[in-house]
Order: sequence, then C-alpha cells, then structure tokens
Amino acid sequence: MASSQHDDLVDLRSDTVTAPTEGMRAAMARAEVGDDVYAEDPTCRALEERVAGMLGKEAALFTATGSLANLLGVRALVSPGSEVLCESRAHIARAELGAHAAIFGVTTRTWAHPRGLIDLDAVHSLLAPDAGPYFVSTAAVSIENTHNFGGGSVQPLDSMRKLREIVAPVGVGVHLDGARLWNASAATGITPGEYAEFADTASVCLSKGLGAPVGSLVAGTAAQIEEARVWRKRLGGGWRQAGVLAAAGLYALDHHVQRVTEDHAHARLLAERLAQTAPGIVDPATAETNIVVLDLAAAGVGPDAGEVASRAREAGVLVSVLGPRALRLVTHLDVDEAGCRRAADVLAAALS
Amino acid sequence: MASSQHDDLVDLRSDTVTAPTEGMRAAMARAEVGDDVYAEDPTCRALEERVAGMLGKEAALFTATGSLANLLGVRALVSPGSEVLCESRAHIARAELGAHAAIFGVTTRTWAHPRGLIDLDAVHSLLAPDAGPYFVSTAAVSIENTHNFGGGSVQPLDSMRKLREIVAPVGVGVHLDGARLWNASAATGITPGEYAEFADTASVCLSKGLGAPVGSLVAGTAAQIEEARVWRKRLGGGWRQAGVLAAAGLYALDHHVQRVTEDHAHARLLAERLAQTAPGIVDPATAETNIVVLDLAAAGVGPDAGEVASRAREAGVLVSVLGPRALRLVTHLDVDEAGCRRAADVLAAALS
Amino acid sequence: MASSQHDDLVDLRSDTVTAPTEGMRAAMARAEVGDDVYAEDPTCRALEERVAGMLGKEAALFTATGSLANLLGVRALVSPGSEVLCESRAHIARAELGAHAAIFGVTTRTWAHPRGLIDLDAVHSLLAPDAGPYFVSTAAVSIENTHNFGGGSVQPLDSMRKLREIVAPVGVGVHLDGARLWNASAATGITPGEYAEFADTASVCLSKGLGAPVGSLVAGTAAQIEEARVWRKRLGGGWRQAGVLAAAGLYALDHHVQRVTEDHAHARLLAERLAQTAPGIVDPATAETNIVVLDLAAAGVGPDAGEVASRAREAGVLVSVLGPRALRLVTHLDVDEAGCRRAADVLAAALS
Amino acid sequence: MASSQHDDLVDLRSDTVTAPTEGMRAAMARAEVGDDVYAEDPTCRALEERVAGMLGKEAALFTATGSLANLLGVRALVSPGSEVLCESRAHIARAELGAHAAIFGVTTRTWAHPRGLIDLDAVHSLLAPDAGPYFVSTAAVSIENTHNFGGGSVQPLDSMRKLREIVAPVGVGVHLDGARLWNASAATGITPGEYAEFADTASVCLSKGLGAPVGSLVAGTAAQIEEARVWRKRLGGGWRQAGVLAAAGLYALDHHVQRVTEDHAHARLLAERLAQTAPGIVDPATAETNIVVLDLAAAGVGPDAGEVASRAREAGVLVSVLGPRALRLVTHLDVDEAGCRRAADVLAAALS
Repeated sequence: MASSQHDDLVDLRSDTVTAPTEGMRAAMARAEVGDDVYAEDPTCRALEERVAGMLGKEAALFTATGSLANLLGVRALVSPGSEVLCESRAHIARAELGAHAAIFGVTTRTWAHPRGLIDLDAVHSLLAPDAGPYFVSTAAVSIENTHNFGGGSVQPLDSMRKLREIVAPVGVGVHLDGARLWNASAATGITPGEYAEFADTASVCLSKGLGAPVGSLVAGTAAQIEEARVWRKRLGGGWRQAGVLAAAGLYALDHHVQRVTEDHAHARLLAERLAQTAPGIVDPATAETNIVVLDLAAAGVGPDAGEVASRAREAGVLVSVLGPRALRLVTHLDVDEAGCRRAADVLAAALS
Repeated sequence: MASSQHDDLVDLRSDTVTAPTEGMRAAMARAEVGDDVYAEDPTCRALEERVAGMLGKEAALFTATGSLANLLGVRALVSPGSEVLCESRAHIARAELGAHAAIFGVTTRTWAHPRGLIDLDAVHSLLAPDAGPYFVSTAAVSIENTHNFGGGSVQPLDSMRKLREIVAPVGVGVHLDGARLWNASAATGITPGEYAEFADTASVCLSKGLGAPVGSLVAGTAAQIEEARVWRKRLGGGWRQAGVLAAAGLYALDHHVQRVTEDHAHARLLAERLAQTAPGIVDPATAETNIVVLDLAAAGVGPDAGEVASRAREAGVLVSVLGPRALRLVTHLDVDEAGCRRAADVLAAALS
Repeated sequence: MASSQHDDLVDLRSDTVTAPTEGMRAAMARAEVGDDVYAEDPTCRALEERVAGMLGKEAALFTATGSLANLLGVRALVSPGSEVLCESRAHIARAELGAHAAIFGVTTRTWAHPRGLIDLDAVHSLLAPDAGPYFVSTAAVSIENTHNFGGGSVQPLDSMRKLREIVAPVGVGVHLDGARLWNASAATGITPGEYAEFADTASVCLSKGLGAPVGSLVAGTAAQIEEARVWRKRLGGGWRQAGVLAAAGLYALDHHVQRVTEDHAHARLLAERLAQTAPGIVDPATAETNIVVLDLAAAGVGPDAGEVASRAREAGVLVSVLGPRALRLVTHLDVDEAGCRRAADVLAAALS
Repeated sequence: MASSQHDDLVDLRSDTVTAPTEGMRAAMARAEVGDDVYAEDPTCRALEERVAGMLGKEAALFTATGSLANLLGVRALVSPGSEVLCESRAHIARAELGAHAAIFGVTTRTWAHPRGLIDLDAVHSLLAPDAGPYFVSTAAVSIENTHNFGGGSVQPLDSMRKLREIVAPVGVGVHLDGARLWNASAATGITPGEYAEFADTASVCLSKGLGAPVGSLVAGTAAQIEEARVWRKRLGGGWRQAGVLAAAGLYALDHHVQRVTEDHAHARLLAERLAQTAPGIVDPATAETNIVVLDLAAAGVGPDAGEVASRAREAGVLVSVLGPRALRLVTHLDVDEAGCRRAADVLAAALS
C-alpha cells in the first residue's frame, strides 16, 4: 500500500495523512513530559488549557483521535437509551463505527442535507426533549463544522445560534464536532470560540489540517471533562507521557492555523479545473474549505468511483471513494499547488 | 389514574389497554403448561409453531412485549456498531427507549415520511452495505406495518417487495415490525405471510388489536430463533409456565383476527366526524386501520394537545398526546360504535 | 422432551417446573386487570404493594423472571464499570448468562464458599469502596438466600447483619437475591422482612417454591423502583395486562408460603436415603431447605453425573446436572412424599 | 501535584512515570511515519512485526495503553455474556475501570492468591466451558505476568503450561497480560515467547519498565488482530502518525530490555532495607522484580498507608497507596541506586 511519503505521490485521500514537519519534530523532541494519567504532563496541560481557552470552555482533554473526542463529548450530554440528532452523513453517524451506540448506548435519528448543514425544520420535527418513561428523549444535537462528507461545508453561524435557541430552553445540549473547525474559521473569519459559544461540548482535531501526527481535544465544563478523563481511561485512552504529542499540537497551533487558507485555495483550484472537465461533477462555489466531493452521477461520468480512483492511483494520485458514484479530494499541508495541478490533470484523464 | 375498566370511560389511548374477554379467560384457565425455559410448555410451543407458520418462517419465539420481539428481531440481523435504517417515527426508534442502542449497540439512521412509509429513494441514499473497517455498515432496514405514529398507515406490499430487491443482494436484512400486521392484513386482504415474505425477521403482537393480555412473537430462521431464545433469557425474559398467556394468544388468533375490521370502521367514523368539526385536523382517507392522528396545528386549533386531552379526560374520553400539537386515537376490542360516537362528541367540544 | 405433567414422572430438576393449581387458575381467570405499562393494573399494584410491605421496602416491581428482578436490583446499586461482589456460584454470576455485564456493564469479583455462604473475611479483602479514578469501585455485594447451587443453604441472619455493618458505612449497597427467601424464612422462622432489612434492594420469586406460573419482584426505594420500571420497559419487560399473572402470585402468597416446609421435609428424606446408599454423597444436615446437591466424587460413585441423570430419566425421575460430578435435586409443590420415595429408589439404583 | 521531573524527587509510584531519554527522543524525532489508520505507518508496522515475532504470534497491534491492549486481547477470546477468570487483584479486574464489562459485556469470576499467582485448583473449580443456554460459559482465563498488585511476582512457567493443558482441550482461551513480561523474563531467563506460547493472546507494554512515553501491543492470530484493529478504531484508539511513538518503542526494545535487572536489584535493596526497619512489612524474597508491596498491618506499623505516603512525599519520595494498610514501591529507569537508598531512608522514618 502506498505511503504518504512517496516522493511524487499526491495524496488527497484525507488531511489526516500529513507527516510532521521538521520544526514540529524538533518541538516534540524537546517536550517536557510527565505521567498524563496522573494529570502531571505539563505539555498536555498547556495544550488542554490553551484549547479550552480558544473554545471558551472551562476545560479540555487531549485524546488520541477525533473519534474519541466526539465519543466523550456526546457521552457528556446523552445517557444510554437517549438520542442524539445529527445530519445523516455526519462523522459521528458514519465514520466512528457506531461507537456512540456500541459503547455508550446512544441512539441516533438523522436528517439529510445535501451539504450536511443544519436543517432547523428537521430538528424541530425530530426534537423530543424529556419525552418521559415510554419514549426516547432527545438529549443532544450534534453539528459538524466543517462537514466532512458534505464537502467541507461551513455551518452558518446564524444556524448554530438559532439551533441553540431552539434546544437550550428545552434542556437539549449541542455537541460541536469541530475536527475541521480551524477550516471553518479560516474561511469565515469567525473564531473557533465564537462557533463553540453555541455548543455545550466541542471537539477539535490537531492531526487533520493542522498537521500534528496524533491528537484531538474535547472541551466542556470542568465537571464534564473530569468525567471524560475517567471514561478516556476506561476506554483504554489514558496515555502516559503524551506531552511529546501535545508539543506537536502546540506547535501546530502556533504555526499551522493560518496556513489552512492555502489548502482552501488548492481545493478551489481542483474544483474549478474538474468542473470544467466534467460539468456537473462539482459546483466550485461549494469548495468552501479544503474538501471537494465529486458527484460522478451528476456529471454523467462513465467509470464508477472505484475505477476512477484506481486509475488515478496508477498515476500517483490518491483519492477517497465515498460511494459507488462519489469521490472525495482533501487538500492539506503536504500537498502544494503544483501537486494539485498535477492531481487535476490526472483526475481529468481518469474521469474520461 | 384512570383504569381501562371504568364503566363509562372510552379509552382511546392505545389498543394495548384491552382486557381479556370471558372466553379468553376460560382458555387461559384450562391451558396446559410446562417450563418454557426448558422449551417444555406445550401451549407456548403450539403458539410459536402456529405464528411461525402464519409468517412463513421456520420458527418463532413468544415474548412478553412487542418491544422485546423487535429487539430480538433486529439483533438477529445487526451486530454492535452496525446500523439499522428506519423511518424517523418508527416504534423501534421512538418508543422502545433506545433499547437497540442501549442493549445491543445498534446504531440507527432515519428518513422521514409523513405517514411513516417506506421511501425507497431515501433508503438508496442512506444504504451503506459492508462499508468496511472505517465506516458504519448498514445491516438491516426495519419497516413498521402498520405504522403506529404514521397513523396506522399500511405499507404498500410493492414497496416492501422493492425494498427487499434493493437490499437483499447487498447482504442487508429486513426486519418487519408487525405489531399491527393483523390490521394491515385486514385492511388489504394481503396475508401476514405475504408481507413477511419480504422480511428476514418479523414480529407480531397479540396484546394490541387482538386483545390478549400479554405477548408478542418474533419469527425467523431456526438458528436465529434459537439464539433469540438465549438472548431472551439473558434479558430476563425467559418466563416459566407462560402457557397461560400463550393460551390467550391462541384464543385471540382464533377469535379476534377478523374483527379488527370493526376497529377500522370505528376509526374512520372518528376521523370523519372530527374532520367535519375541525377541517384539516385529519384526512379521513388516511384512517386506513385503527389509528387516527390529529394535527391540531393544521386545523388551527387553539388549545394545545395536552389541554385537549385533559378536557376530554374530564368528560371520560382518554386519548394520547403525541406532541404539543398532535393527538392519537386508537380503536380496539373494548370500544364499540356508541363509545366512538360519544368520544367524537367529547373531542369535538374539547377542540373548540 | 419430558413435560412436567407426565403422569408418573418425578421432576426434581427445579422448583420452577410447577404447574398452577386449580385454585390458582381460578384466581387468574377472575383477575381484574389494566395496562401495567401505564401502571394501571390493579392486581399488579396490589401484588407490588403487598410484597414491598413484606420486605419492608417503599416499592416493588413485578417482573417476568427472577433474573430480571436481580438484574434491576443490582443495576439500582451499581453503575457501568463498577463492581458487585458475590459468591462464585451465585445465581447472578452463574445462571443469568452474564446479563449484569452484558447489559449493564457491571463487573464482578467473587469469593468461594462450599455452601455459598457469606465470607466476611473475603468481603473485607475484596472490598474497594469509592476507589477513585483509576481503580474499580465496589458498589454492591449480592447475597443469595437461600443459595441455590450451595444446596439451598440459608444465610445466617447474623452474617447478613455484619456484612451490612461493614459495607453500609463506606457507601456500598447490598442486594438480596431472595428467589427462595420463602424457603429461608420457613426454615428459620425469620421473616422475609427481617432478612431484607439488611439489604438495599431485594428480589423474591413467585414461580419457584410458591408455584405461580410466572413472576418475580424486585423491591427498594420508591426512586429505585421508578427507575427500574423504565429499565424494565427498555429491556422489553413492560408487559400489559399482567394482572392475570399477578393474581397467581397473590394466590401463592395466600396459600403456598407455609407449605414449603413440606418440600423441606421431602428434601431431607431424599438426602438421608441417598447418604445411606452412597456415603459421602451428601451430608443430610446440609439439606436445610428444598435443594439437595449430590457430590458424586466425594462418594466415589463410578458413573458421572450425566450418566446417572440419564439412567434416572429412563426410570421417570428427572434431576439436574450441575457439573461432571454434581447433581441437584429440588423438591416442590408438584412432588409428594411418595414421589420422593420413588425418586430415592431410582437414584439409589442409578448411582451404583 | 508533583512532576516526575522534580530534580531531587524519587518517584516510586509506578514505572509508568519515566520520561524518554535523549536517545529515545532522537529516535522519535527522526521516525518515518504514515497514516496508521490506513496501516501505512512503516514504524508502527515494524514495531508490530517485531513484537509479534518476539511473542511467537502471527500479528500484533500497537495501542495507546496497556489497558487497551488487554481489553482487545480479552475481547478476542470472550463474547458478551461469557466470562473470563482471573486472580482477584489482576490489573484487568482492578485497574481497568471495569472496561471489560462496561464496553464488551464480559463478566468475571475470580480466585484470590496472596501473590497473584495461578491457582490450578481454583481454576478447576471455577471452570465452566461451553455451559449451554442457561449458564455462563467460561471463555478465557487471564494471567498477569508479572503480577502488579501481587508485588511484581513471576508466574511459574510450569503453572502456565498446566493451565493451558487444562483449558485448551475444553475450548477455553488464555490471555497473558504481559505489561511487565520483560521483568518476568529478565528475572527468570525465560523469553517472552516462551511465556506467550501458553497463551492465545498476549499484551506487552513499552511505557512501564522499558521507558517509552506511550504504548503497548496486543498479539494473537492474524484474524484476531485484524478484528482488534477495527475495535481499536471504534474505541477511538485509531491514531494516525503514531510512528513517532512506535520509534520510541523500538528504541526501548533495543536499549532498555536488559537493564530492567537493575530495577530488580533496586527493588531488592528497598525490600531488604525496609524489612530490617519494620520486620514483617515485606519478605525480601518476594521482591522478585521491580515492585515491592509493603504490608503495614503485618509489621504493626502505627500510621496508615495514606499518612506514610504523605510523610514520604514531604521528604521528596513518592509511593502508591494500594489500600488503607498497603503501599507499593516501583523501581524504574528514572530511579538510580542512590535514589533508592534515599527513598529507603525516607520511608524508614515515615513508617515509625
């Protein structure tokens, strides 16, 4: 299988594939560490405090993955047998292997939106707060911003505000899956904290657009995070001298937040080029951040997604297959403009 | 709290409230019994074999509730961390307290249909069979026929056939929640077995329209039911001399199946009368079986659902509150035509 | 497979095999009922109130099985990831299919006692109350009285008192699995309430020694039972007109409690006879109630337990195989003295 | 709270507190990495292959913690509702927050041994393989070698062989919790592979005696590990460029395995010194590896464990409180002989 370090490979499968930079490696090598199970790792604590501050929350917890951060964030709001509402292609519903149900007994109902956005009418219709001893109670709504499978789409801040106004008075919480909140923020100028203000718990990821090797955080109240720390350990996620990874995260926050705008420009470049090649395959206006979803059906492309991906792979370009007729391209730290131009050429050929 | 045996009370909250008839009680009193945990209760076995036969399945299992029958039926098809798709107000999603997630780690995604019907496009769009090691795999679709919160609506047999044609080839199962399959059958003339042909597992209930005091069954292959029997015991549902209840079920199958058409006529009567009183509150054509859902918002009714229910209760008519602007009326064995006429009068007054 | 109604069969496998008497059937046939999910079944409520009163608890809940009553009783005391301590052959550890872990995430540590009795030193050594964020906290100790696999042994009241004195001050609860508490009470003259005083939650069973067809109860505080009622429904145990079964339970409480002393005499008869036949196979002094456990190894019996049970079955006597070298005989309502004498003859022959 | 990097602090709480050495940091800084969720991290793969080889297993999986490695190892052998047998103070029973039950529905029964060793008679007595549809089946026995709370005690290889001979023929698996298998191996000269030969699944830890910052592995058959990889992701443990941590692990295997004998000598030094000071507090012969458990009760020490630990902490020596009358000292890479001598002085004073 291909490595992301292959010299002339353009890996657009995900922004998770980035390798740490030299500067980041140096920061890791000199990290001050301690036993994080005993909450004694000074670099972890610094990272947790910094992210909590950025999100305007009392506390945060450093986790090995965004999935774990979401799992703990939703758990903080939803008891076994209660439900979280989310869009039907949300990461928590599609890409976390059913963990919310399998581990915490959380059930889910969904609405569908072509770009993964909040649908206030749908929420209204699904919402069942405090539904009593016979019916499932809605305990939280989860919003993904940006929405991965919706094509890196940005949730309008106003929708988040209105959602909160609907659900908070009836005791329903909001979890913000902010794995790519940095991208939403870069695209709009709205800070992560302004988004997180309309959520009770929020996760952010350091190993996607920001380029750290490993790590996410979940933030909330001090009590929620204290309990999340215990559950992190129960789930086998209570690592020890994790400061070596936290140092990479702090470095990423210092050096890689602004630069995601470059990834956005690269994504736009890809979308524009492919829209010319295969009209209908993507509306470039929807390439708001660093993700481009290609709809082969809409463009009347002959070969299916697996075939196109396979052809591209042979030419040194890696992309993700989202479904029989859908591909996903993700730009990131390890793909420059030249790489994107080459990828566009390769994909244009593969699509025909 | 009101008892369903109050002399002049008309209890339209649910068809679960029926009391056993004298004939049924007599059948229970003479039931031959044995220890059903050891599969030695002859009356349970007779009931299980009879229902398996009616549904065209190899085997069936007698359970204390329809919720348990559905829980075991879905479990037979879906592993922890995999998903079942269903309509957003399906009984398994709304009225089983999240048991599928809480007990078996099954996650759910939903589509919404105003009458709770199968939406083949939505299923197509949600379906993710065998989704590999990173994504949640769809393992089953569950269909409720008739659909309770959809207003007792009957699933078209053709939709069931097409659904099966879509999902079976990709290894996705179908569970049929047939709590009121008897009503669907009475309304259409299609037998329970013809419906169940398009499902892998199916549940039916004896204590709703059929009037037995307690009991449902889940049917499937012999291997599925053998495993369901073990899980029934693990869930604390492995009862002993349950033949006294199975006898009521057999009696109901002998005497109460045909008569549900009377309940259907009563529901139609209620719907027609209330549609005249409060135009828009219900389309009488949708009162296909024994359930009438009233939409107070559509009719511009002033008081909310709780208030209307409370007024009706004071006048001796009990109805269910489904939401702030929705009420449900259910006809059954213990409500005759005169009762329905009185209920219609009382509700007409309460709605104004 | 053999039915417990076979005319000349002596079924000593379990006291769960009893069939309802004529009087009990008549009580069931005239039971007043309602929808118990809505807590409206007057006979269920009467039974629940009566048993709560007998056990000195605020409230009780009627369940389909003793396993469900224990499951809900332990759950009321132990959170997911915390532990219950019990004897290593306790019913909750051995005969409930791991439900406490599988459904409620309760972990267990055990001590071993030849008769299943409380071992205060072992409890002292295992006890880990409020063990903090890294270790498993002990949340409850469960005591089975009488202890089924310990041979129907009675827990000394003084041990129960001392256990409670040890654990209550450190916030650890006690669950009393009183499936056969009636037998303990009959053997000692100590009332069920006196035993239950040293427990936070307690279960009792109506379908073992008392001869009802189906049903157990779990008792505790009003808040515990209210929550248990919701979980009963989530587990698929929220039955409807269960009053027909509750009526059998009330009848059993009226007519069958005192008579368990006859079962005790029959068990003693079996134990004495078999101890003469195969010295060492059982100490008759340990046949305190209605259960006799035979130790084939201690008696140097040649054939193993399966072979002995098979020989006895051919001669019309059914017994349980507890292990390769252990058999269990249980006396009950449907076995009279003559039956026990015949069983003793058959077993004496089968053992040789 | 004290950091493990305090200059003159002697931290004997656990061998998890070690900080990476300069050489290890350099190895991490130059690690080749890839996306481990896609199994593309070359350093992770190298580590996994190396450890699989050392343990004589087909495959291994790199996890964030020893708890996760054990969780996945036991899960590979035990289904929900089945049981694992272990010693009553085993790490999986005491120090993993009930995860085996809470997450995977695995129930546990235990035997007690003062040093945490295998008790073949107890296993014989508890063992219930393939116990059928009514009883809990034993699916695995878990052995911890060395046994942490037993005082770093080494499991005799012959006991492991005999255990395997008892359980394998009846289809019961063995999990080896080898968090400190390196210590057992160093103490006896028996290789990790020779121990693991008598287990189906085995875990080892890199961040205890070996001094890596983060990481353990679980090994088994290729099929078991493939499934464990999926569950690792479901549990939120599917990290990305984990090669930076794997590099530390490989460095530890190259440089820190042999040196654990120094830790053993230091532990012996502590035990001997304290046994002289407070006779009965520990038998120096039991300080087989790098753990010393002090029994304050046996030595008639006045102050309780919390008080002694507090006094020691004030003098710059950190120890773990295992219970009201038990302390644990653990030697490791970051404590030299001088530190141990100072710790012995401090503790001798604190005990009086």
